[in-house]
Amino acid sequence: MITTYELLKKAKAVSLSAPLSTEVKNNALKAMANALVCSADEILSANAMDVKAAKGTVSDVMIDRLRLDESRIKAMAQGIIEVAELPDPVGKVLETTSHKNGMTIAKTSVPFGVVAIIYESRPNVTSDAAALAFKSGNACVLRGGKEAFRSANAIVKALKKGLSECGLNADYVNLVEDTTRQSANELMTAVGLVDLLIPRGGKGLIKACTDNAKVPCIETGTGICHIYVDKTADFEMALNIIENAKTSRPSVCNAAEVCLVHAGIANEFLPLLKQRLCDNKKVEIRGDKAVCEIINVTPADENDFDTEFLDYIMAVKVVESVEDAVNHISLHSTHHSESIITGDNAASDYFVSRVDSAAVYVNASTRFTDGGEFGLGCEMGISTQKLHARGPMGLGELNTYKYVIKGNGQIR
Amino acid sequence: MITTYELLKKAKAVSLSAPLSTEVKNNALKAMANALVCSADEILSANAMDVKAAKGTVSDVMIDRLRLDESRIKAMAQGIIEVAELPDPVGKVLETTSHKNGMTIAKTSVPFGVVAIIYESRPNVTSDAAALAFKSGNACVLRGGKEAFRSANAIVKALKKGLSECGLNADYVNLVEDTTRQSANELMTAVGLVDLLIPRGGKGLIKACTDNAKVPCIETGTGICHIYVDKTADFEMALNIIENAKTSRPSVCNAAEVCLVHAGIANEFLPLLKQRLCDNKKVEIRGDKAVCEIINVTPADENDFDTEFLDYIMAVKVVESVEDAVNHISLHSTHHSESIITGDNAASDYFVSRVDSAAVYVNASTRFTDGGEFGLGCEMGISTQKLHARGPMGLGELNTYKYVIKGNGQIR
Repeated sequence: MITTYELLKKAKAVSLSAPLSTEVKNNALKAMANALVCSADEILSANAMDVKAAKGTVSDVMIDRLRLDESRIKAMAQGIIEVAELPDPVGKVLETTSHKNGMTIAKTSVPFGVVAIIYESRPNVTSDAAALAFKSGNACVLRGGKEAFRSANAIVKALKKGLSECGLNADYVNLVEDTTRQSANELMTAVGLVDLLIPRGGKGLIKACTDNAKVPCIETGTGICHIYVDKTADFEMALNIIENAKTSRPSVCNAAEVCLVHAGIANEFLPLLKQRLCDNKKVEIRGDKAVCEIINVTPADENDFDTEFLDYIMAVKVVESVEDAVNHISLHSTHHSESIITGDNAASDYFVSRVDSAAVYVNASTRFTDGGEFGLGCEMGISTQKLHARGPMGLGELNTYKYVIKGNGQIR
Repeated sequence: MITTYELLKKAKAVSLSAPLSTEVKNNALKAMANALVCSADEILSANAMDVKAAKGTVSDVMIDRLRLDESRIKAMAQGIIEVAELPDPVGKVLETTSHKNGMTIAKTSVPFGVVAIIYESRPNVTSDAAALAFKSGNACVLRGGKEAFRSANAIVKALKKGLSECGLNADYVNLVEDTTRQSANELMTAVGLVDLLIPRGGKGLIKACTDNAKVPCIETGTGICHIYVDKTADFEMALNIIENAKTSRPSVCNAAEVCLVHAGIANEFLPLLKQRLCDNKKVEIRGDKAVCEIINVTPADENDFDTEFLDYIMAVKVVESVEDAVNHISLHSTHHSESIITGDNAASDYFVSRVDSAAVYVNASTRFTDGGEFGLGCEMGISTQKLHARGPMGLGELNTYKYVIKGNGQIR
């Protein structure tokens, strides 16, 4: 067994070697995709062992996330091919300045170096994250959940095979073998070896990283997303958007969890909302006092406005104004995505300029916060912090920059 | 006395209020500059008390940094005026995407919110940092060194007066009243109140932030900058650059601390280097074994290659090749600025692509790593990390972005 420290040193070494050309990287990605499909038998039998071991210890939803089949493996391979087809983010000259002394100063995009990703049990994250890190010029160190270790290990083995077949160093893609908390802590504190840490998972993991990480870290994912229905909202539009944001995929971070309704329309709107969500879609509404006076729903307790339900549950509250809505959001949001439904430009301008979230919507569903939908072509996660990357992180966000200055003897 | 927590809450509140227009901000900056000049008497008498109290407890260099006079106050005011003249970074549409469903997705620059700056005893940092934070739309919380507290307090009072005269909330600029370690720790851990922490100071402060900060933090400043003299270097150019990088201002972070010399030219070049640095400029060279065999200088111990001297001292080492130089740099650099002096494009390409620093130079002095020199017009510090900002941070680097999505009922 290789220690996490040894793994990190190997990743760091390869990250400092010659940058690979776009063509070399794309060919390697295709070889990785091919190796994945060719290794389907090994991956599926490793996965069967993971599934067998997990049964009875985790929920059925988790088992479903964990389970692979031929078509899921093909989809993973296809995902890698799609990354190969995206533009290379490395080496772009972002800005150039000519100094009056004749030097040229070029702000140039470069990889971070070693990107570590801590994630949970979905095996496809292994190949997705590896492909994105590799295409953006980074070496990656993956640390998945222990339930999926055998699957992840078989996947990484295939990816490394793909790299080797192209004559490349297989250390670009690495899986941490230790799946105890110890290895996560090692990644969080590996100053000088981990250039960027991306935790992908629930609140507990993100908090552990915020609390303990000594290396640069991008928080991702938790989304308590709000939809505010203004007094000038088109009701049908509002209902469609709320239904979509709440029920089209409740388990994802861009699903809406809270609906705020302007007091001036609450009497009319709330019965329609109840009909649309509860009667048609079996959503449980948890209402504040004012809501419960209008419709017969579960009374909300205070925690309900600070909970990422990831389920068919929505907290609903009556607010007095757009100012009041923005205030509530500023106290309870996780700064992911919020939307205003309104016919009033002054209200939407107010909302857009004051709401401090990665994505702020006017008259659209929060479900669009996604790398693919935003034109990034892919996604490593959705940042809910403000440093470096905000919202969906694509290939560009996996690069930093450096200044390259060329002169012929200039002194200051 | 106001507690640091209360101060942060006030700063957070004002940061969430209506964004100010460019004109309003520029007028306020001019009023702040004017108030500074008008308050010169109060500032100078507060400063005289600081200087008196500091005498005997700190070095003469520190006393000189601390001391203000009329012309330094005028220079501070002029600095604020110059910030007013810079372009406003807020509200720029960085990228726009039209979704095929008709939504527009605009990646838009926005302030961080509350920027906290921990710095040491130079009073001018107080007005510089406040002006940059204000122009970039942020509220700032300044925490200076205790030696300069009275001066900083008088300066902040004047700046607040300028804000009030324009009818603006004076909470945009705040000085922490507690100058013990406690308040620095409070800033580092104020999750949800501090949106960005910038420590400006020595290694100890930066390390304390890396170790303890739970809020987003940008490391600045420490510079162990290297100059590598390749075997094809023009000797006169190399000597000029090294002399400039080492001696033009040894106390700043972009001064060179280490010189690496290719073995193939060491016999010829080192005596010239000794003449230029030691005989002409009274620099102490600390050489490795190979250097000491060629010129008679102080033998270096291992620490000398990991020390930011900030003084007329330079560590010098013989390396076998550009690869060897890059290797040494990757082990010892603080990722600030490094330069290669060479006549060989292959060597400079190798150096530029492998050296993992904020600024990488070919045939120029490291002393150019500076916001003004890089065309940013100003500087909040020089980032030596890779997340968000690298190298000199100007107004643009004091902004983050958000996605603003406008639709007319789109669902996914």
